Amino acid sequence: MAESWSFLDAFEPNFRPLVVIELAKGTKEETIKWFTKRIVDKKANGGAQLLVKPLVTESGDENIYLIGASHLRLLLGAETVGLVKECNDNSMRTFTYSSRKTFKDFADDNHNFLTMAECQYIIKHELENLRAKDEKMIPGYPQAKLYPGKSIVRRLLTSGILVQIFPLHDREELKKLRQSWYGRVKVGYQPLDEIRCYFGETIALYFGFLEYFTFALIPMAVIGIPYYVFAWEDYDKYVMFATFNLLWSTVILEVWKRICAIMTFRWGTLLMKRQFEEPRSGFHGVLGINPVTGREEPVYSSIKRQIRIYLVSLPFVCLCLYFSLYVMMIYFDLEQWALDYHEENESNFSNLMLFVPSIIYAVVIEIMNRIYRYAAEFLTSWENHRLESSYQNHLILKVLVFNFLNCFASLFYIAFVLFDMKLLRQSLATLLITSQILNQFAESLLPYWLQKRHKKRMKKRICSLKTDTDLSLVEQVNLEKEMGTYFGTFDDYLELFLQFGYVSLFSCVYPLAAVFAVLNNITEIYSDALKMCRVYKRPFAEPTANIGVWQLAFETMSVISVVTNCILIGMSPQVNALFPDAKMDLILTVALVEHLLLAIKFIMAFVIPDKPRDIQIKLARLEFESLEALKQQQMKLAAESLKE
Amino acid sequence: MAESWSFLDAFEPNFRPLVVIELAKGTKEETIKWFTKRIVDKKANGGAQLLVKPLVTESGDENIYLIGASHLRLLLGAETVGLVKECNDNSMRTFTYSSRKTFKDFADDNHNFLTMAECQYIIKHELENLRAKDEKMIPGYPQAKLYPGKSIVRRLLTSGILVQIFPLHDREELKKLRQSWYGRVKVGYQPLDEIRCYFGETIALYFGFLEYFTFALIPMAVIGIPYYVFAWEDYDKYVMFATFNLLWSTVILEVWKRICAIMTFRWGTLLMKRQFEEPRSGFHGVLGINPVTGREEPVYSSIKRQIRIYLVSLPFVCLCLYFSLYVMMIYFDLEQWALDYHEENESNFSNLMLFVPSIIYAVVIEIMNRIYRYAAEFLTSWENHRLESSYQNHLILKVLVFNFLNCFASLFYIAFVLFDMKLLRQSLATLLITSQILNQFAESLLPYWLQKRHKKRMKKRICSLKTDTDLSLVEQVNLEKEMGTYFGTFDDYLELFLQFGYVSLFSCVYPLAAVFAVLNNITEIYSDALKMCRVYKRPFAEPTANIGVWQLAFETMSVISVVTNCILIGMSPQVNALFPDAKMDLILTVALVEHLLLAIKFIMAFVIPDKPRDIQIKLARLEFESLEALKQQQMKLAAESLKE
Repeated sequence: MAESWSFLDAFEPNFRPLVVIELAKGTKEETIKWFTKRIVDKKANGGAQLLVKPLVTESGDENIYLIGASHLRLLLGAETVGLVKECNDNSMRTFTYSSRKTFKDFADDNHNFLTMAECQYIIKHELENLRAKDEKMIPGYPQAKLYPGKSIVRRLLTSGILVQIFPLHDREELKKLRQSWYGRVKVGYQPLDEIRCYFGETIALYFGFLEYFTFALIPMAVIGIPYYVFAWEDYDKYVMFATFNLLWSTVILEVWKRICAIMTFRWGTLLMKRQFEEPRSGFHGVLGINPVTGREEPVYSSIKRQIRIYLVSLPFVCLCLYFSLYVMMIYFDLEQWALDYHEENESNFSNLMLFVPSIIYAVVIEIMNRIYRYAAEFLTSWENHRLESSYQNHLILKVLVFNFLNCFASLFYIAFVLFDMKLLRQSLATLLITSQILNQFAESLLPYWLQKRHKKRMKKRICSLKTDTDLSLVEQVNLEKEMGTYFGTFDDYLELFLQFGYVSLFSCVYPLAAVFAVLNNITEIYSDALKMCRVYKRPFAEPTANIGVWQLAFETMSVISVVTNCILIGMSPQVNALFPDAKMDLILTVALVEHLLLAIKFIMAFVIPDKPRDIQIKLARLEFESLEALKQQQMKLAAESLKE
Repeated sequence: MAESWSFLDAFEPNFRPLVVIELAKGTKEETIKWFTKRIVDKKANGGAQLLVKPLVTESGDENIYLIGASHLRLLLGAETVGLVKECNDNSMRTFTYSSRKTFKDFADDNHNFLTMAECQYIIKHELENLRAKDEKMIPGYPQAKLYPGKSIVRRLLTSGILVQIFPLHDREELKKLRQSWYGRVKVGYQPLDEIRCYFGETIALYFGFLEYFTFALIPMAVIGIPYYVFAWEDYDKYVMFATFNLLWSTVILEVWKRICAIMTFRWGTLLMKRQFEEPRSGFHGVLGINPVTGREEPVYSSIKRQIRIYLVSLPFVCLCLYFSLYVMMIYFDLEQWALDYHEENESNFSNLMLFVPSIIYAVVIEIMNRIYRYAAEFLTSWENHRLESSYQNHLILKVLVFNFLNCFASLFYIAFVLFDMKLLRQSLATLLITSQILNQFAESLLPYWLQKRHKKRMKKRICSLKTDTDLSLVEQVNLEKEMGTYFGTFDDYLELFLQFGYVSLFSCVYPLAAVFAVLNNITEIYSDALKMCRVYKRPFAEPTANIGVWQLAFETMSVISVVTNCILIGMSPQVNALFPDAKMDLILTVALVEHLLLAIKFIMAFVIPDKPRDIQIKLARLEFESLEALKQQQMKLAAESLKE
């Protein structure tokens, strides 16, 4: 079992495991042989030209393989995925093997030119692009059909032969990162560049956004505190606070785009060309010709998908939203009933009964959320999107709308139907604080504790075996493969999005929300960092240039909050007192102010450039250079043609 | 004088004049020699490698030169400017000389592969890119400074040595085009592809938009007619009409993007890479290093420009807007005074006096418009924008805002301050119809008549001279150089924009506006066509992929019209009658409906894709092909590297 299939083994004595592949127990020998051969095979033969080593475990019945690659192979892979790196003259350029000498820190013996996360991303990319040639099925599994060009790894995953594929942690690097990230209590920025080196751009960008957002909330929090301390209730102060909040939220979202551009330019992802996206693994259809590539692949009619989206998914989502509103109405009825009951027969039991509706409602919301999430995933998958990105966008949209309603519908009801500002403030505070505490607990601390317990048990078991193989590596792989999988930044962004809603939607009623948000986010940074470093498997790095659809979601929220805040101010007794007998004038004034604020928001979003000037200049310079190079080439050609 | 400087003359016996250059009378011989030498000089020596021929005129004291180019030179130029042409396999590709055989209709002896407009555009591009090498000034004119890289033609233009440079008409082609465009009365589409071949994409796109917009208005017009015929006054019908209008205007603007994409894809401009923009001719600054190109050129601090924009231009525009409103208020006072006077002493004179305020106001508005236009051009020029496009955008914005206010402020005042719907309808109709008639007259028919008179006189003069040179060419050049210059599509779009305002802003008050707009636009197409073909100098073709900032302007107008229409409906007595004692409910309902409509608008704009699916697929295929080509290249390289 200790044999290795790598043809390059002789040249690469120091095999460095980067990625782990776990095959199902009892996978046929024939299949393993074929798969590993394809992995190590030469590029020219349609292989990935990587290195493979089986991991020898104590029991011996597990099919775990370590994947690595030669330094040269990784450099060529970096060119294939289109990595952008810094050059000696401090400009950012797409890496090519032939121009490797011009890049900063490049040396033929410097194996740290590519970060480990980049190497793992390259290997993942190469594995996923391992495509079937003339195989009609996976050898040994006739039911797992293949067709020319189908990604082998994706078929192995969907047919259950490949259990998982994940990148290994680098224990030393991780220790260093932990140290500088949350090891010591300090005031300062997160080591975003180091996070990016270790976890990749998507995760670094999330932490960057979290940090930025926390800083951006501080002015709101600072201004909000005196409202609480001095119990200010003058309407003009509230109007000022709300106006500041609304304009401020526009500014911070625009400025984030600029900061994001600065970061992703430094990381090279701003310049990275979009690769052609292959169909996602769940995509199915009849075999046809892809009109873009001209290759054979499953095709699925776009009209059918539109029909599914608009005739099934959309009505279903609307129904769910309606149902959620219905449940909310029952909750308010129950609440009223409990209150009446308590008033009629005051007792300890009736006192307890007061809490029952809230508890039931909280439980029901949680259940509905879970069921809906499951349904949304099923529906979006059934819509059969060809691309992972389009799948993600449709899923995010569905979940976002439902969560928005679930979180804020009761607040809207209290504010705009019951007109009870005191209850609104109270509910807002309760919802915000409890959700923050629950999240922190459920998201990081609980898994961390479970993970720690599991680790201890594992360690004991492995130590008791006392084999003579490389214990630490076996131990590490076995530990990490049991760790939970981090499913992307979706839930983290969702949490921030809802928090932004709590802070901005009713900011003129509860100025203290920003304070709680800031406090939460400071601990959130630490608990999320803990989660990434200790609780979950290392995720594959994913290059990205922005936070994508979340930017739009946050901007939409800030538009909605203009409307809600204007209405709230218009409803406040202080403002009403200003227009004693002219309700109409009041409403017209509020509407006018709202439209003005919206207009200012849009003009501000239009006027503030999305990229800082120096980034714009750098991008323009790169474009200019490539145009010049083209022109030079043409000039040469022209001169030759005219000479003839 | 009949000598020609072209070194290629021997190979190109059939010199075809494409572009005319007129130098100032009395330009020094030294300058002419130098300039023409630079034009004909080889590319390698920094020349443009074009052909030049002086035009021998009757008087002989005019410095008019004809510019042409060899077929080969034009093909190479097409590559330089990045023209996109159709290939034999019906795909659109950037033209390169080396791949010329793969393009549709290409043959070495087919001189019609490039349209005349394209040839002229190429020559213009080459002339403008004729750059100073080590000259410190224009020979013979020490005050006309040059620095390395400065466009010679632009310096010649700004220093007045070069009077004008314009492309020649092709009389036969023009005749054919006129015939199919407006020669016979017919129902059908305009020959947009032929217009594009003759006048270029910018102008063809304007006529395409005009035609599309006219068709798009027909449903509104058709629905609007019964309102007038049956004198419908039910509020529900008005609400329906307004709602239809608002959603319809969103749809047509979104669909236009798709149609525009289809057209510009067919024309190749959708795929054309943006060229690096050189500074506009009026740009000045201290000599420095351009951070993008690294070349020496005048640089001007962006902060200074921002200061000029926000601290001078913006306040000035606001002041002008205020002044315009002030004048409007005086007009309403005058009107009231005239009415009072008429009521007091009814006489013929007082009857006449009733018209005086309107006449004065119309005249004052016209004067203000002209002065403001002049001031806006001066200010925008003073803001010292580096790029022509940025200059244009700032100018358009300034002029747009002022024109919007001038046209619609009085209507807003009548609608929302005086609450006089009858007067509003009357003013709207008067303004719309008179402005349309005046525009048609002033824009096309008057210049056409002047032009015709001038032409007759010219013909007489030339015939009386009876020289032996190529009379028709001399005559043509002399005729065309005296023709007015077409300053771009700005005024044409502005007219359509204001018309769109009349139709949509108060559509629920005056449903007949769309009918007048349709009628006007049908004649507008003919009068604009006449203007382009008979009145003005042929303009240089300008490749463009969309209608640019006008799309945004039309969309903004349609957002504003949602607000105005909702308010108008809310104010109508029929709707008021529905809420007899609950004014507040009425206003709240109107506000709710307005927000809903706005939300639907934004969602629709988001959901309707900007490009039709087949164009998306074609674009994706091109992108995929270039990625594949790159990958192939890398694979080859990788295979070689791994072999070593």
